[in-house]
Amino acid sequence: MRFLARVAIAAGMVFCASGALAQTDPLPSWNEGPTKDAIESFVARVTTPESDAYVPPKDRIATFDNDGTLWIEQPMYVQLAFALDRVKALSNEHPEWKEQQPFKAALEGDMKTLAKSGKKGLLELIMATHAGMTPEEFQTIVNDWLATAEQPRFKKKYTELVYQPMLELMEYLRANGFQTFIVSGGGIEFMRAWAEPIYGIPPAQTVGSSIKTKYEVKDGVPTLIRLPEMNFIDDKDGKPIGINQHIGQRPIAAFGNSDGDYEMLDWTTSGDGARFGLIVHHTDAKREYAYDRNSEFGHLDKALDDANEKGWVVMDMKNDWKQVFPEKQ
Amino acid sequence: MRFLARVAIAAGMVFCASGALAQTDPLPSWNEGPTKDAIESFVARVTTPESDAYVPPKDRIATFDNDGTLWIEQPMYVQLAFALDRVKALSNEHPEWKEQQPFKAALEGDMKTLAKSGKKGLLELIMATHAGMTPEEFQTIVNDWLATAEQPRFKKKYTELVYQPMLELMEYLRANGFQTFIVSGGGIEFMRAWAEPIYGIPPAQTVGSSIKTKYEVKDGVPTLIRLPEMNFIDDKDGKPIGINQHIGQRPIAAFGNSDGDYEMLDWTTSGDGARFGLIVHHTDAKREYAYDRNSEFGHLDKALDDANEKGWVVMDMKNDWKQVFPEKQ
Repeated sequence: MRFLARVAIAAGMVFCASGALAQTDPLPSWNEGPTKDAIESFVARVTTPESDAYVPPKDRIATFDNDGTLWIEQPMYVQLAFALDRVKALSNEHPEWKEQQPFKAALEGDMKTLAKSGKKGLLELIMATHAGMTPEEFQTIVNDWLATAEQPRFKKKYTELVYQPMLELMEYLRANGFQTFIVSGGGIEFMRAWAEPIYGIPPAQTVGSSIKTKYEVKDGVPTLIRLPEMNFIDDKDGKPIGINQHIGQRPIAAFGNSDGDYEMLDWTTSGDGARFGLIVHHTDAKREYAYDRNSEFGHLDKALDDANEKGWVVMDMKNDWKQVFPEKQ
Repeated sequence: MRFLARVAIAAGMVFCASGALAQTDPLPSWNEGPTKDAIESFVARVTTPESDAYVPPKDRIATFDNDGTLWIEQPMYVQLAFALDRVKALSNEHPEWKEQQPFKAALEGDMKTLAKSGKKGLLELIMATHAGMTPEEFQTIVNDWLATAEQPRFKKKYTELVYQPMLELMEYLRANGFQTFIVSGGGIEFMRAWAEPIYGIPPAQTVGSSIKTKYEVKDGVPTLIRLPEMNFIDDKDGKPIGINQHIGQRPIAAFGNSDGDYEMLDWTTSGDGARFGLIVHHTDAKREYAYDRNSEFGHLDKALDDANEKGWVVMDMKNDWKQVFPEKQ
């Protein structure tokens, strides 16, 4: 029986080890407090089979805005920085851009005019500079750029300026049977180029704005070509429309940081049963940025006013996050 | 050591049991022969880590046409039968339909004129009869109809006239780490109403044609409303475009049955590495239907001509399938 006893002890040790693992904090970069409590309590309610608010895994859909929610969006949207570099790279072939907005502002570095052109202006730059190639070729250009481009204040690659607490949150939700989707005003192919290795979100779970694509057979080879024509703007009321089109289910949890996420939050949290809406409020000028009502990028005004009435959690970056960006590997 | 010996024997038994399990035929409704061999050999090649053609699970994307590939499409597309019943149900509110095509043909049961209007005509009927409600309300109408409507020849519910061998094939692919998507000319919301319980394919993995949707806040409640306006036709060159938009990856395997699947098959199988394309050829007038070049629904002509050159497997329903529909439960 000595052998069996050893087996039992070994089994017990395994049990203890996995018990300890289960108690490990899955959100170590979140400070203890009401925001973290609200997240954990929501997840417990929808995943406990005995709970009145139980939701089966197939319906555990969580949607995340990208710019300002999962990664940095100051001093400008990352995709805008990318587009500006593309405009400069291609400007010799387009002398007319010197007099034509928003290209003129892009070439002159006139950020105020550019910011005012908003996501729509950004998408105009995208259409003009990013068409005429296959989606794969475009993604290669994006990844080549991300490999060298630096955020001007932090002097780091943009993919290093993702929010560590949000990475943990997405992983925590997935470990609890959720499916995590990006739902962003940014370009769908721009995000698909890197979202899987950085966020663990595959291309099919990435929803965004898009330009049209054409199918053609070139020298006998079937090819998709990106066209300089808008297909869909996945912002404001476009977010619930895009979610319905791509996902086909209303999320039970939504995460955003600006008025562009208002409709997604409102549609998500007004469904039946347990729902969760959270706004990432940028309150940390020291470790990241502090902005809301007066910012051109990530403008947050009406959603902040209505959050309390709507039951949305307003996260406070300065107080709720122990750490903002991942540690350098 | 006797105990260890017993453990070894027990372990051996477990091994034998799982060995036997692994040998259970995952495709029992497929007859032995070159079609079944081709499927199993492809799956083995892309899932064996030592294979030159190995594909990691995240890239194992398989796309399936629906009408005529996963379920019956004769004597007319199921969604057309549904649309005709809706036209009749709503005709009192639309006296103008008596003189207006394709509504006139729908009300008169003039199938020849209707068939000639093709998927586009069907979608016109859809737009006129299926707008002005939420996606959830529409799906309820679809499911209420499917619960009672009968296919005229087999006197069975349409959801009982899915192809058992294709159900097994999708399950077999998923068990081998594939993600299975529907990519159909049919309406995306029509399929989402029932695809998950019938095929095991969730709404987010269902790609199809669509009408536009509007977001509005009605009495304080955020709502999506279906509009009588075409958004996207997911047929012919629309299939690779729709796949790129929704899935964001080129499939490694595609399954279809008509010329509407030509571009999807061609784009899929012309990618690098191991690829698989299969055409379901309806050759079984006794157990199902026999049709190809002369059929209005599921017209198969050019894809049949080019299959050999393109390396697509042409499945022969009469000889390759032991059983067509699921046994009555």
